[in-house]
Amino acid sequence: EKTKYDNNDVPGVVTGLAWTSVGGDILFIESSLTKGKGKLTLTGNLGEVMKESAVIALEFLKAHSDWLDLEQDVFDEKNVHIHVPEGATPKDGPSAGITMLTSLASSFSGRKVKKNLAMTGEITLRGEVLPVGGIKEKILAAKRANIKEIILCERNRKDVEEITADYVKGLKFHYVKKMKEVIDLALEKKTNKKI
Amino acid sequence: EKTKYDNNDVPGVVTGLAWTSVGGDILFIESSLTKGKGKLTLTGNLGEVMKESAVIALEFLKAHSDWLDLEQDVFDEKNVHIHVPEGATPKDGPSAGITMLTSLASSFSGRKVKKNLAMTGEITLRGEVLPVGGIKEKILAAKRANIKEIILCERNRKDVEEITADYVKGLKFHYVKKMKEVIDLALEKKTNKKI
Amino acid sequence: EKTKYDNNDVPGVVTGLAWTSVGGDILFIESSLTKGKGKLTLTGNLGEVMKESAVIALEFLKAHSDWLDLEQDVFDEKNVHIHVPEGATPKDGPSAGITMLTSLASSFSGRKVKKNLAMTGEITLRGEVLPVGGIKEKILAAKRANIKEIILCERNRKDVEEITADYVKGLKFHYVKKMKEVIDLALEKKTNKKI
Amino acid sequence: EKTKYDNNDVPGVVTGLAWTSVGGDILFIESSLTKGKGKLTLTGNLGEVMKESAVIALEFLKAHSDWLDLEQDVFDEKNVHIHVPEGATPKDGPSAGITMLTSLASSFSGRKVKKNLAMTGEITLRGEVLPVGGIKEKILAAKRANIKEIILCERNRKDVEEITADYVKGLKFHYVKKMKEVIDLALEKKTNKKI
Amino acid sequence: EKTKYDNNDVPGVVTGLAWTSVGGDILFIESSLTKGKGKLTLTGNLGEVMKESAVIALEFLKAHSDWLDLEQDVFDEKNVHIHVPEGATPKDGPSAGITMLTSLASSFSGRKVKKNLAMTGEITLRGEVLPVGGIKEKILAAKRANIKEIILCERNRKDVEEITADYVKGLKFHYVKKMKEVIDLALEKKTNKKI
Amino acid sequence: EKTKYDNNDVPGVVTGLAWTSVGGDILFIESSLTKGKGKLTLTGNLGEVMKESAVIALEFLKAHSDWLDLEQDVFDEKNVHIHVPEGATPKDGPSAGITMLTSLASSFSGRKVKKNLAMTGEITLRGEVLPVGGIKEKILAAKRANIKEIILCERNRKDVEEITADYVKGLKFHYVKKMKEVIDLALEKKTNKKI
Ligand SMILES: [Ca+2]
Ligand SMILES: [Ca+2]
Ligand SMILES: [Ca+2]
Ligand SMILES: [Ca+2]
Ligand SMILES: [Ca+2]
Ligand SMILES: [Ca+2]
Ligand SMILES: [Ca+2]
Ligand SMILES: [Ca+2]
Ligand SMILES: [Ca+2]
Ligand SMILES: [Ca+2]
Ligand SMILES: [Ca+2]
Ligand SMILES: [Ca+2]
Repeated sequence: EKTKYDNNDVPGVVTGLAWTSVGGDILFIESSLTKGKGKLTLTGNLGEVMKESAVIALEFLKAHSDWLDLEQDVFDEKNVHIHVPEGATPKDGPSAGITMLTSLASSFSGRKVKKNLAMTGEITLRGEVLPVGGIKEKILAAKRANIKEIILCERNRKDVEEITADYVKGLKFHYVKKMKEVIDLALEKKTNKKI
Repeated sequence: EKTKYDNNDVPGVVTGLAWTSVGGDILFIESSLTKGKGKLTLTGNLGEVMKESAVIALEFLKAHSDWLDLEQDVFDEKNVHIHVPEGATPKDGPSAGITMLTSLASSFSGRKVKKNLAMTGEITLRGEVLPVGGIKEKILAAKRANIKEIILCERNRKDVEEITADYVKGLKFHYVKKMKEVIDLALEKKTNKKI
Repeated sequence: EKTKYDNNDVPGVVTGLAWTSVGGDILFIESSLTKGKGKLTLTGNLGEVMKESAVIALEFLKAHSDWLDLEQDVFDEKNVHIHVPEGATPKDGPSAGITMLTSLASSFSGRKVKKNLAMTGEITLRGEVLPVGGIKEKILAAKRANIKEIILCERNRKDVEEITADYVKGLKFHYVKKMKEVIDLALEKKTNKKI
Repeated sequence: EKTKYDNNDVPGVVTGLAWTSVGGDILFIESSLTKGKGKLTLTGNLGEVMKESAVIALEFLKAHSDWLDLEQDVFDEKNVHIHVPEGATPKDGPSAGITMLTSLASSFSGRKVKKNLAMTGEITLRGEVLPVGGIKEKILAAKRANIKEIILCERNRKDVEEITADYVKGLKFHYVKKMKEVIDLALEKKTNKKI
Repeated sequence: EKTKYDNNDVPGVVTGLAWTSVGGDILFIESSLTKGKGKLTLTGNLGEVMKESAVIALEFLKAHSDWLDLEQDVFDEKNVHIHVPEGATPKDGPSAGITMLTSLASSFSGRKVKKNLAMTGEITLRGEVLPVGGIKEKILAAKRANIKEIILCERNRKDVEEITADYVKGLKFHYVKKMKEVIDLALEKKTNKKI
Repeated sequence: EKTKYDNNDVPGVVTGLAWTSVGGDILFIESSLTKGKGKLTLTGNLGEVMKESAVIALEFLKAHSDWLDLEQDVFDEKNVHIHVPEGATPKDGPSAGITMLTSLASSFSGRKVKKNLAMTGEITLRGEVLPVGGIKEKILAAKRANIKEIILCERNRKDVEEITADYVKGLKFHYVKKMKEVIDLALEKKTNKKI
């Protein structure tokens, strides 16, 4: 059974795109903060590479805390938990990188994620977004799940252009090169900060 | 030999529903608190995914301590132990999520769990309850064990409706979407707080 | 070569019953306390499930320290070591649970264990004793080893009643439901506290 | 798809040369510093030997902090994260040693790396650069990726001299014996220190 | 090549007896103490069961520090290192238990071990010495290595009595039941305490 | 390609002899000290037994710090890193023991190692040097690499005497029994202490 988009009405929840042996699917990346000492906890039956994406995302945010008007101390005073639901399904690979980055940026800033938005892309420590595979399958899954906008790496543009126009009708694509663009596109304007 | 429902007359004990290769069964999730520093101990021959459920449940409660009128400090001043009896049987999967959440909520609040109640459902970090498999087998096992009420995910309603009416006679079902609903349904009113 | 009962004249030493591929046998659970910080050390070539029994027993005693008139602090100021002799033989399973509980209760209280007593039963975190397998083989081994009294779970009574009367002549059985009953049956009255 | 050289306009980003079963390729070593306690984090699906290179590079810099005008304390007050992008590809071997050294030297000094420069070579704890394999494949990959200068171990000079002159036209080679030469060749002059 | 007895002229060095697939052999257990915090380090290519013997020996000495006139604090203020030479040979099993106990007792008390003495026997936490296997092979190896006295478990007496008298001529056997007997037999009288 | 002797002009660098499936070779053991808390880091693709040699060497030096006129505190105030170059080659076995001991003694004392000297031998915790295998192959490799003096265990003398005289012409052998002899033979006189 394919997952359906579900209003992300809590900060920290972001919709990603996954590509499995049985086709594309959407998945949710959830993060939450509690009082703590900077510990990162990862759950959801994640493989090593996917766990590394979370580490990169968190380290990157620490090094660029000014982008979200965060004080450096907040990273030492909170424990971070990232969960990817559907624990029965093992998950791996680097393609949830920008989704994890967005989830953490949302949790730390208290800014929610735009509705009906999904994304997929590898992240780096220098702020670049890298292309990922399975674009066609991911996009079809996004459409079925009622996604309206998708963020992809600029270098994945050619993969979208190869898809029959009908299949992508009604979808708006954002092609990005830098991780900062993802955050700016994905997060709603700040209203009342939560943490 | 199938396990029978046994009065849960101590806070922290909750009846869950399991689905194994030899059919459904009930199981108990037990938790207890001791003076400590917030360490979580898990026993009962649990697999990685089931352990993750416990981590999610605990982190979720920390982030929503107000629901149970708990002070944040309590999580730093107690060690938490979750045990699932019958150590000879390996156990895994995400379906004990709401059972673990209820067990922890019961232990931390000192409120006992309603009698003759069982439950099964995956939890997420954003507070949603997700559907799980093996519903028919779990319900038959619950009935055999003298369970009267069952909490399930709303998205498992269709699985119950496919079961011949006779098999579910005398059982009351509660379909939930949110983890808060589980806690409100499962815990008895507060009388004298224990911890 | 089968082990023989050996006067348990030191607190912390308890006789358990084991069931292996070559029949029943008795085994000794030994525990000792040293000045420390609450660390639990387990030796004797024990499998994961058997190690979990020790963790459950210790956590349970911490949560019920009043039963033995212990002060909570004692658990933070002692290191606990549990050893099961005959290191060449791997050992596993939950059935040494009540034996471990009794060993720890004896070490912490300084009360010795009754002579010629053996026991077998799984423990839970809520204080129940659960039935275990291999009852017939265990009882025959106990008799050969000169055991006079045996503590079993109430739900193992039927397994004893299936054994030819002659085989159990001279043995006294205690059937229990709760872990507190085990401690009350097994430990000698307090004389001079050791720790 | 082969990776292209991408302006390394952030300190800490260095271009290395890799040799895989499908030929040569360039790769990026990225490092970043955050407030911390001297912890080293490694991501990018790295094998044990490649992780060891990072440890050697960091220990070597600590022992030679004067080369970069660094105070010893900086190593205790920063956490270091090294990432090698393209997490889907496992990476191993000692040949990224000088690349990792350069990345760390760049991050700690705030000095950027020269443009269009790549490198490959094993490092030691006594400051020697050791030769590595796959030189021909690495050089062809570097050329395709628009690299203009390459740093190699002096003992790899013979491997370059065996390549048809045409293939290496337009490439400038720097042969080194010592790790200090790598740092002096690779880093731009200090302008404004970042950390 | 079989190992020869070598004057144990340093406290902490004890000769044990081993039984391998190619016959009996002697081995040395060495221990040394350094300023520290009670850490136990084990080297010599030891298996899990043999490592457990070291843990039991150390815990037992801590609990019976009065036997050697030691102050409890000494265990917290020293690091203990136990090494079993010939690192190329994997070693395992519980039979070095009394040898490890003696080595630690020697190091902590500063009392040397009697010359030309070897031993083999399992230890328990309650102070019993248990019998071990391979007695015939071990004794022949001891004789070849110029050992004069051997400490064994009382329950191994029958294994010695089965050996042709000629083979054991010139060897003196000490049969023990308790670990305290081993220490009293093996250590020389105190002269000048070393630690 | 065989490694050549390379002037060890930095304290902490020592030439050892290795024996692999493709014959003998020399290898370098490098150590360096940085400000720290007594942590030991090992790199160079080392197996468990080789890592144990490093632990033994360091513990032995701690226990005999007076030999090098070292204060005990230095071991708590430095981190030690030992690296064995050529990370692509897995290395194991106890025969680098005296080489590691010499490397650490050199680093801690600031005394360099004599030129054109190599060594091989297992170490123990009581200060004995044990014989090792592959002597013929190691010696031939040493000669090819321009080594002039070799330290071996006294019990390896017979292995050298079996080699045709011509092959060992120009090589000077030092046969030792004790680890202290190795240090005295290998280290140059103290000039200016480095650490
Ligand atoms: Ca799904
Ligand atoms: Ca994604
Ligand atoms: Ca059951
Ligand atoms: Ca359940
Ligand atoms: Ca036995
Ligand atoms: Ca038992
Ligand atoms: Ca690439
Ligand atoms: Ca490289
Ligand atoms: Ca030997
Ligand atoms: Ca022995
Ligand atoms: Ca070599
Ligand atoms: Ca060597």
